Amino acid sequence: MATKAIKGGTIIAADRTYKADVLIEGGIIAQIGTDLSGDEIIDATGCYLMPGGIDPHTHLEMPFMGTHSSDDFDTGTAAALAGGTTMVVDFVLPGSDGLLAALQDWFQKAGKARTDYSFHMAITGWNKQIFDEMPEVVARGINTFKHFMAYKGALMVDDDEMFASFMRCAEIGAMPLVHAENGDVVAHLQQKLLAEGNNGPEAHGYSRPPELEGEAANRAIMIADQAGVPLYIVHVSCEQAHEAIRRARQKGMRVYGEPLVQHLTLDEGEYKNKDWDYAARRVMSPPFRDKSHQDGLWAGLASGSLQVVATDHCAFTTEQKRFGVGDFTKIPNGTGGLEDRMPVLWTKGVRTGRLTPNEFVAVTSTNIARILNIYPRKGAILQGSDADIVIWDPEATKTISAKTQKSAIDYNVFEGIEVTGLPRITLSRGQIAFKDGEVLAPTGSGRFVEREANAPANRALSTWKELTAPRKVERDPKNIPAGV
Amino acid sequence: MATKAIKGGTIIAADRTYKADVLIEGGIIAQIGTDLSGDEIIDATGCYLMPGGIDPHTHLEMPFMGTHSSDDFDTGTAAALAGGTTMVVDFVLPGSDGLLAALQDWFQKAGKARTDYSFHMAITGWNKQIFDEMPEVVARGINTFKHFMAYKGALMVDDDEMFASFMRCAEIGAMPLVHAENGDVVAHLQQKLLAEGNNGPEAHGYSRPPELEGEAANRAIMIADQAGVPLYIVHVSCEQAHEAIRRARQKGMRVYGEPLVQHLTLDEGEYKNKDWDYAARRVMSPPFRDKSHQDGLWAGLASGSLQVVATDHCAFTTEQKRFGVGDFTKIPNGTGGLEDRMPVLWTKGVRTGRLTPNEFVAVTSTNIARILNIYPRKGAILQGSDADIVIWDPEATKTISAKTQKSAIDYNVFEGIEVTGLPRITLSRGQIAFKDGEVLAPTGSGRFVEREANAPANRALSTWKELTAPRKVERDPKNIPAGV
Amino acid sequence: MATKAIKGGTIIAADRTYKADVLIEGGIIAQIGTDLSGDEIIDATGCYLMPGGIDPHTHLEMPFMGTHSSDDFDTGTAAALAGGTTMVVDFVLPGSDGLLAALQDWFQKAGKARTDYSFHMAITGWNKQIFDEMPEVVARGINTFKHFMAYKGALMVDDDEMFASFMRCAEIGAMPLVHAENGDVVAHLQQKLLAEGNNGPEAHGYSRPPELEGEAANRAIMIADQAGVPLYIVHVSCEQAHEAIRRARQKGMRVYGEPLVQHLTLDEGEYKNKDWDYAARRVMSPPFRDKSHQDGLWAGLASGSLQVVATDHCAFTTEQKRFGVGDFTKIPNGTGGLEDRMPVLWTKGVRTGRLTPNEFVAVTSTNIARILNIYPRKGAILQGSDADIVIWDPEATKTISAKTQKSAIDYNVFEGIEVTGLPRITLSRGQIAFKDGEVLAPTGSGRFVEREANAPANRALSTWKELTAPRKVERDPKNIPAGV
Amino acid sequence: MATKAIKGGTIIAADRTYKADVLIEGGIIAQIGTDLSGDEIIDATGCYLMPGGIDPHTHLEMPFMGTHSSDDFDTGTAAALAGGTTMVVDFVLPGSDGLLAALQDWFQKAGKARTDYSFHMAITGWNKQIFDEMPEVVARGINTFKHFMAYKGALMVDDDEMFASFMRCAEIGAMPLVHAENGDVVAHLQQKLLAEGNNGPEAHGYSRPPELEGEAANRAIMIADQAGVPLYIVHVSCEQAHEAIRRARQKGMRVYGEPLVQHLTLDEGEYKNKDWDYAARRVMSPPFRDKSHQDGLWAGLASGSLQVVATDHCAFTTEQKRFGVGDFTKIPNGTGGLEDRMPVLWTKGVRTGRLTPNEFVAVTSTNIARILNIYPRKGAILQGSDADIVIWDPEATKTISAKTQKSAIDYNVFEGIEVTGLPRITLSRGQIAFKDGEVLAPTGSGRFVEREANAPANRALSTWKELTAPRKVERDPKNIPAGV
Repeated sequence: MATKAIKGGTIIAADRTYKADVLIEGGIIAQIGTDLSGDEIIDATGCYLMPGGIDPHTHLEMPFMGTHSSDDFDTGTAAALAGGTTMVVDFVLPGSDGLLAALQDWFQKAGKARTDYSFHMAITGWNKQIFDEMPEVVARGINTFKHFMAYKGALMVDDDEMFASFMRCAEIGAMPLVHAENGDVVAHLQQKLLAEGNNGPEAHGYSRPPELEGEAANRAIMIADQAGVPLYIVHVSCEQAHEAIRRARQKGMRVYGEPLVQHLTLDEGEYKNKDWDYAARRVMSPPFRDKSHQDGLWAGLASGSLQVVATDHCAFTTEQKRFGVGDFTKIPNGTGGLEDRMPVLWTKGVRTGRLTPNEFVAVTSTNIARILNIYPRKGAILQGSDADIVIWDPEATKTISAKTQKSAIDYNVFEGIEVTGLPRITLSRGQIAFKDGEVLAPTGSGRFVEREANAPANRALSTWKELTAPRKVERDPKNIPAGV
Repeated sequence: MATKAIKGGTIIAADRTYKADVLIEGGIIAQIGTDLSGDEIIDATGCYLMPGGIDPHTHLEMPFMGTHSSDDFDTGTAAALAGGTTMVVDFVLPGSDGLLAALQDWFQKAGKARTDYSFHMAITGWNKQIFDEMPEVVARGINTFKHFMAYKGALMVDDDEMFASFMRCAEIGAMPLVHAENGDVVAHLQQKLLAEGNNGPEAHGYSRPPELEGEAANRAIMIADQAGVPLYIVHVSCEQAHEAIRRARQKGMRVYGEPLVQHLTLDEGEYKNKDWDYAARRVMSPPFRDKSHQDGLWAGLASGSLQVVATDHCAFTTEQKRFGVGDFTKIPNGTGGLEDRMPVLWTKGVRTGRLTPNEFVAVTSTNIARILNIYPRKGAILQGSDADIVIWDPEATKTISAKTQKSAIDYNVFEGIEVTGLPRITLSRGQIAFKDGEVLAPTGSGRFVEREANAPANRALSTWKELTAPRKVERDPKNIPAGV
Repeated sequence: MATKAIKGGTIIAADRTYKADVLIEGGIIAQIGTDLSGDEIIDATGCYLMPGGIDPHTHLEMPFMGTHSSDDFDTGTAAALAGGTTMVVDFVLPGSDGLLAALQDWFQKAGKARTDYSFHMAITGWNKQIFDEMPEVVARGINTFKHFMAYKGALMVDDDEMFASFMRCAEIGAMPLVHAENGDVVAHLQQKLLAEGNNGPEAHGYSRPPELEGEAANRAIMIADQAGVPLYIVHVSCEQAHEAIRRARQKGMRVYGEPLVQHLTLDEGEYKNKDWDYAARRVMSPPFRDKSHQDGLWAGLASGSLQVVATDHCAFTTEQKRFGVGDFTKIPNGTGGLEDRMPVLWTKGVRTGRLTPNEFVAVTSTNIARILNIYPRKGAILQGSDADIVIWDPEATKTISAKTQKSAIDYNVFEGIEVTGLPRITLSRGQIAFKDGEVLAPTGSGRFVEREANAPANRALSTWKELTAPRKVERDPKNIPAGV
Repeated sequence: MATKAIKGGTIIAADRTYKADVLIEGGIIAQIGTDLSGDEIIDATGCYLMPGGIDPHTHLEMPFMGTHSSDDFDTGTAAALAGGTTMVVDFVLPGSDGLLAALQDWFQKAGKARTDYSFHMAITGWNKQIFDEMPEVVARGINTFKHFMAYKGALMVDDDEMFASFMRCAEIGAMPLVHAENGDVVAHLQQKLLAEGNNGPEAHGYSRPPELEGEAANRAIMIADQAGVPLYIVHVSCEQAHEAIRRARQKGMRVYGEPLVQHLTLDEGEYKNKDWDYAARRVMSPPFRDKSHQDGLWAGLASGSLQVVATDHCAFTTEQKRFGVGDFTKIPNGTGGLEDRMPVLWTKGVRTGRLTPNEFVAVTSTNIARILNIYPRKGAILQGSDADIVIWDPEATKTISAKTQKSAIDYNVFEGIEVTGLPRITLSRGQIAFKDGEVLAPTGSGRFVEREANAPANRALSTWKELTAPRKVERDPKNIPAGV
């Protein structure tokens, strides 16, 4: 089997930075050291070697009103590779046929992937079939279950269903995820705004104030705590939700938070744009927030109260966005970001000193790999790890533009931002998947990554919950009266 | 009309302490000054004169499983007077006949009252009749609407219903109240505990951890904020709920919190008592908490993050409590307290220096009168106020005991506590209603107190919400595409 | 003695709003009621009657580099009256001759006052004379002692001195005040900025970041808590200090906070003005802050974590400000505000709905009167109170301008702000002191107001501290070894 | 060179757990993999392999009143090895001869060490010599400088000195450490307590309430932030200090906190012991705290707001403790812990589920190695790391007892605690240093570990501070008036 040696670079891991060569054999990192040699030599002089990015939050080819989000597993993962990301985790949204049937659909769609991938399974209701299928889903290598607290009448679950599902997660060693927004209140505000004639894209922001996200995050945290299971909160966009997470962690609760690169860098001013299309393209949930929320999110990444930066990549074309002309509630929710996540985060985070390079690796790759229990197969440059490596040129620059992007859509929310720090080469399991601006990994070269249940945090939490469980007061029968 | 002069005492108001005589005429305070004289002279030498206590949280003759809570408006208000309380606010719990029908029932029951009284109207569901009757209720002098976030399958409302009702409150200038506990999770925990054989009274506490109260408080606050209406949270028993209140107030939200005298002084250790009856008598919701919650509640009263001390007086006999032998969820929830609230609070609060005497008056009378918009008719010793006055002997002592109490039940949760500071005389609208241990006010002497809507806090909040309401972005039609 | 009746107005008190006439006799409020009549009738139709404002933070004719701040007790109190303020509390800054000697100087200067006045005594060092004179100061009617944690080398005291002084305050029933900024760090930052060529007025802001204020507030709070004495923090300008106060109050500590009207409404952008004079005129300490601090300060006034709005009126002319050309540390610190405090606060607070009218009265007058222990002689419209009353026309408007102000200086930091809500008439002890734009109270008509020690908060705190004081562990002598 | 292979164990790293053999050559980890073999085989079946513990806080042979703390580098490091700790960092306390002279003394004393070691340099005053010697100290491999905010009249520095030293640290890429207690207030409280006859060991606790620690932590954080340098706070014992740290981290400040194993597990009740000796042996600063502080400290370790568990090992014999009979301020401050830290933390932390095994490794070894910038030479089991490895038997148990300990003193504060989880073998740079209860490493086998300045956190922070530094407002000269 032919080997590759990446030479002359500096490895950045979540815990350290050091110069070393990397030898790859059979898609695996065979050796890390000095003066390594291989059948093929990749020159990384002047570059950093980092574990390929993992984006745990994408919606590729997501069904929507009879059509789909416009990036599928082919174009979406092409964009990922061009941005240094080598694995995506997408959401399976089951219909009435149950979890396993939906999983089959998603396996089908993901056949086109150019990067490795995994899934989160959504729980969008509660019944015996779901209860029974959850361990089956785990058996197929999926240890995370997503719950939508918003999208009333569609994906939303109520507290009763959430508690039941979280309890089930605790039993089977899985971890619940939540989209945290109070869907009941969103629905009311939408109707109120429309009734007042507030029908433009900016009303999308008005209908989902940060207080609704904070409330829902707080509620999900309580439910997870009572169910005795860790919790992962997706797309934390605001101080209110972040505060709830910090408050929980401060009490020893095992809660994780994932801000998106969009919320870290873009703000609600975008919705005030006089051009409807411009504003509508930025419509996603949670919406962009007031700029004042951003400092806290950045601080959370550095201090560890937030762990992961994702994109919620769910790309709709301008054409699709126009479903919502005259009624903002019909604008499909979603933006792109897979190609831009790492360069934008490096530029706005590492180059400013908000994050160390090691923290950058932690929040783009290592932390989520640990949380998803696939570390160090993914998320690490270690002997034995999959050779998912991005060779990062810290001095390369470009101006982000829809014209040159890999994504299938016709715009880019980061349009015009100049980034410094870009992938020179992205390797996926040892294959050069992206180089010199070109995606080389063929459609379908990605593989499904199985994830085991019972991660260390689950086990520790279960031990603690058992130790502190309520104890019955033993009473002498003579001190218990006859009932009435 | 005969006049009375109370002479020789020191008036404690919420804002000051001063020596003065009080002249009463026609049930009203006619004059405050020195050397006043009247047809009848009441000697208050060595005593404080304080506005009669207002307990805004009672359930007298509350329907329960075919019977009622055992203190009715007769015995309950007798207990109140003996403890220096001259007004109670009880909860109307409507059935399927609607709000106005239920109100009639409560007017009927309250006919026996020996103190003045008012009602909060409960909203236990949502439909057009309720929507329509709410302003009628306000027209009858009731400006507060109670919402139960717990008691699933019975009184509980969900977020959708709460938001609708809170919006309606905002429109009509009323204020929502909430019982804040997550009823869905309570129901799950109850089933879990019973399934594990945890069926004793202590499991009542286990089934309602403080996190559930904090969560619900936080949720109600968010909903009130979105609806643009002030909020009053009853029986704040724990740091979690108090924290949510502080956090809201710190953002300028108009939220009030009411701890009970029980939670300020008693703790969950009571449920561990080896005697089932002893423990069951303490069953109320929220349950008694770990002692560590108490310091914060006291601090809240002094610093103003909590405003009112109440009792949630809902007295069930030991016999009634025994409905729940073998199944703690069937133990009727409630304890007494009307007679003990003020002496216990004075002893544990004023005599320790946790509260100033003025703060004592504020939290037992003045603040709630202002919140309920009946100040200074009630809650004050001012010229023109109702002559509801307690003549307080700060050196009088007794040991609390069920044997000597006015309440109809056979125990007292404060049994054995020695209090210093007791009413010598309680006047209700100028009549001596309690003196030397005896209740003198006849059954039926109390009157209904009408309360107007649109309190200052409502008006200020509405102004602010209007000023900061979302504004539509005006777009040139040429910048709005055709819809799809 | 001739009487006056103010008729047709609506009284706004801190606790209620009601229509009533006010009868004044001998400078005192003789009666409040309907249909009152007097020798002189003052028509208040369409107006509010509020207790005259009390500004507890002024520096009139303050010595500075051989000259003085330009408003003395004559012009300063004229400005006060024009703005509805009827009492000021100024700071006595003692020199090496001790407290009593300095007090004499201030009595001298205050002879010109047109409003009633009191003093805070500054403690700017520590020695036996100061220790001995403190009770003498209290005996002269001054129960507050100010401590500067900034102005190193001049007024600043260190922690050792503060603790000693706070202990002394506790003993004599007085209350310490602090100017909270870390003076050591200010001094370092000033030198650093100057060394870097940062010598303009904006560097004043840079040299005093909010973190320094928050730190010092937190430190003073701890010291007061250990000394067992309430604490009043002047000019709370930022979230950091406010957070420290909230945190303390949440633990039951008795700490008060006073934001200035300037910090509530103006921001640091002013220092970026391209005109040196413009920027220098805004130089005060703490400096204006980023706008993001303001919402929290307003919320604090509504929720009670902050109690008082003051001005720190210390007026320097443009000429005086120019001492600091080329070296910002030499710009005299101070702005005006006495005339503008109440109209600006009404406009930005009450008219927006941030504050109720009652809260306005509380924070401009009643609260500080209670804190200073002169209530209800001052701070109230009650029978027996001094007839310090402002007749407030809520619809009157003007545009603030230096051209028309009473202050002696040549600019106004609120220049150009349009206010709605102005005094029509201001009465000082029953005399019409301001009317129709004209100050009528003669120079020297103001009187010194004595303030007693041992306010209720001091007494309650002392009781609590004694109750919870450390207790010696009694050990059997046989369990105590011989020493070494 | 002879090699060793540790076979059959499971490696626990801060980021993962996996089965692997470890090959050691020349004191270095040469290889990690399966089926490794070496000249010597060490069987680790059933055991965990963890990086040797690092205790960053010891005072061995510390000068004290003409004598020394009783564990020197010989006995102290023997105890360390017996507890699985392979490196200590001790504090150099300079006298008037300056930093370098003192460093020589400590190198001398440390010559006896059986483990590797490093030093923190204390800054106990400020002058030109210190300023000049600081970079020299860094050049000798010491990148941390300790500041005592307590011990007035001895080691304590004031804010002015701290700011100067922190600025110097920022310049030279070093990190300041602080002992955070307000020494001025401690001194006052000590005098007050003694004056009141409170002279027993419990008064030590009374004289150093947690509020003093919280205040000082908060102050040090502000000073570090202004100086632009990361900060490490030693022996965080209470919620107050922890809260200050969390608040700082939440704003993106780079602050680290180190609780001691004592504060995590023992409480102030110990000082109430009726036996003077028993109580005095527990005297250390900060003192043991109320039990309520502990939950938060544990949560901080799990959530990342606290990073390191240390001991502050400073062992005084009972005889030495008796210096303080009759005057608690003379009781030498310090307890042992080096041998017990890891077993106690494993028992109370990992076995309860409060910490995962990976978190245990992080807080006992990896995190501090990263903070001190010696990772992965220390703190890791990675190829190339020093072979400092503890072979941990998770099922081994013992009852802690002074009778069997390695420390030179005659008692143990953990006496009687049963631990489960103990080192079977400890290797120091590949040598078996402890085995079967016996310390095998000879005196003097330890080596000094040089630590480089400019750790990643320093560099990132400097970048950010430069980016956000105050900018001068450029003004047209015509807009700057002539000075006065």
